Amino acid sequence: MFPGGGTAADRFARTIGEATGGRLTIRLFAAGELVPAFEAFDAVQRGTADCMHSTPYYWQNKSKILSIYTTMPFGMTNYEHVAWLRLGGGQALWDEAYAQFGLKGFHAGSTSVQMAGWFNREIRSAADVRGLKIRIPGFGGDALRKMGATIVNLPVGEIFGALQSGAIDATEWVGPWQDLAAGFYKVARFYYWPGMHEPATINEITVNKARWDALPKDIQQIFAWGCGDEHNQVTADNDANNGSSLEVLVRQHNVQLRRLPDDFLQAYGRAWNEVLTELRDTGDDLTKRTLDSYYKFLREQTAWSRIGMQEYLNARLMALRAT
Amino acid sequence: MFPGGGTAADRFARTIGEATGGRLTIRLFAAGELVPAFEAFDAVQRGTADCMHSTPYYWQNKSKILSIYTTMPFGMTNYEHVAWLRLGGGQALWDEAYAQFGLKGFHAGSTSVQMAGWFNREIRSAADVRGLKIRIPGFGGDALRKMGATIVNLPVGEIFGALQSGAIDATEWVGPWQDLAAGFYKVARFYYWPGMHEPATINEITVNKARWDALPKDIQQIFAWGCGDEHNQVTADNDANNGSSLEVLVRQHNVQLRRLPDDFLQAYGRAWNEVLTELRDTGDDLTKRTLDSYYKFLREQTAWSRIGMQEYLNARLMALRAT
Repeated sequence: MFPGGGTAADRFARTIGEATGGRLTIRLFAAGELVPAFEAFDAVQRGTADCMHSTPYYWQNKSKILSIYTTMPFGMTNYEHVAWLRLGGGQALWDEAYAQFGLKGFHAGSTSVQMAGWFNREIRSAADVRGLKIRIPGFGGDALRKMGATIVNLPVGEIFGALQSGAIDATEWVGPWQDLAAGFYKVARFYYWPGMHEPATINEITVNKARWDALPKDIQQIFAWGCGDEHNQVTADNDANNGSSLEVLVRQHNVQLRRLPDDFLQAYGRAWNEVLTELRDTGDDLTKRTLDSYYKFLREQTAWSRIGMQEYLNARLMALRAT
Repeated sequence: MFPGGGTAADRFARTIGEATGGRLTIRLFAAGELVPAFEAFDAVQRGTADCMHSTPYYWQNKSKILSIYTTMPFGMTNYEHVAWLRLGGGQALWDEAYAQFGLKGFHAGSTSVQMAGWFNREIRSAADVRGLKIRIPGFGGDALRKMGATIVNLPVGEIFGALQSGAIDATEWVGPWQDLAAGFYKVARFYYWPGMHEPATINEITVNKARWDALPKDIQQIFAWGCGDEHNQVTADNDANNGSSLEVLVRQHNVQLRRLPDDFLQAYGRAWNEVLTELRDTGDDLTKRTLDSYYKFLREQTAWSRIGMQEYLNARLMALRAT
């Protein structure tokens, strides 16, 4: 058992012991204790561990499409993603993808919409991205590369120093809560939104499938319900703490918030579509079916969110300012 | 046990039997079978039933503030509400409110943002609301009354006929999924958004507190996890089906979608603030503490949602249109 999200993994492990009256107990190993963090997938596959707490885009070296179960640039929000998994065929596709590796995955949290990141160069137009040295992994970085940015890969522990020394101009990280804790406000001037590259960032609790199949039905149900409740708890942790941390960043640390300009966002959308087309063109049958399912559902959800969540939030802010 | 949400209550009852290996079984009674729907609260309080599936704003005759656990006009979204309950002190306040009636409540679903409703008169400005005969219960209706609307109370079964005959000009209902099923598109010309009066509409699974306290700890944990997972499932049901139903309404039934104009939304915000001030001024200590907690949390969340969810959704739509 590997914690990715520290306290979340600990809470889940403790609570499943209570909920099953001790019939299922989970012993936690932090990243590096049993195997390094990025070997958790292999460890669960071969049975060195029975399950892991992580997020699927770490496993894109196994198959690029696995990233979709974490988040996609300009993709689904958290609530849309959960609806896709549960009602739109997403879970069946995830099960099919993970079964190839002997795994069974559950969604178990979201960071909520992330921030675009910390920048020491101001982005006034899409052209300002050319030559920008930025740390941003995965698909989000692939799109920025097409816009002329230089994508830098760095171990987590070296990001702060690289920003400070000027070795990089910018980094994406998570949202106000984790970013405050990481202290990036000390070494970066601008904090940019929106988080077009990671709108949902779903956590997984993933189990060795043979071990899963061997669990009694009642334990399976308790485990599945636990992952579902954990999804709410982790998302709530992030939303609540993002709200209070944002206030600390702005009021105590005088962080300068900036919105990425329209022409940047439009260019990013076009660049991302190129990446997506390449992914489809080079992908296997399962990749194509997964993209078809995700984007059909996203089209419907975008039409619904537009008049539902999106315009509600816009109207609320407008009404608040008018009172 | 009373189902409010039919299939949801049935799913929860069936699954808790499986998850507890039959140690806790729930026998369902539909509304009207054991007691009428609007007497469920009393029935659980006195122990005629052990728990109910419903939503707290039905119990505002017990205490007006209970509505806050369903939704508030221009209030929190579903994910903000869950964060408030779990991290912002909301659950403790709900527990305190329900303990007065011998009840313990759990959040167990959301309709997602609702639609403003079905109208046979076009709303081109706030002034068009004067004299409008509209069926809209609770706080949402209180604010419209201040704007000059005539609020009509009707049993559910009479709404369709009243719209058809012209006895009412408009009704709010839920969202595209339930509204398609109700067939309002046959008797109303315009379908308005956004759902400023009900942005979250949370379901409850509420238990007789003495019965709850007597449950073994492991059963309590399974029950709580089940409610949490059910929250995701119900929300996903609504979001997924709202997406596909909206397409049916627009493409097959040629429903005319309309957005409420800015000056209406601003006037509604001011009218709602008057209702809120009266609620606070006439409320007891618990009401005041609950409003303080909710609105402190909402202020932080509005600042966060503005640059998080809200601007992400706006950016996604803009980028989509540019490609």
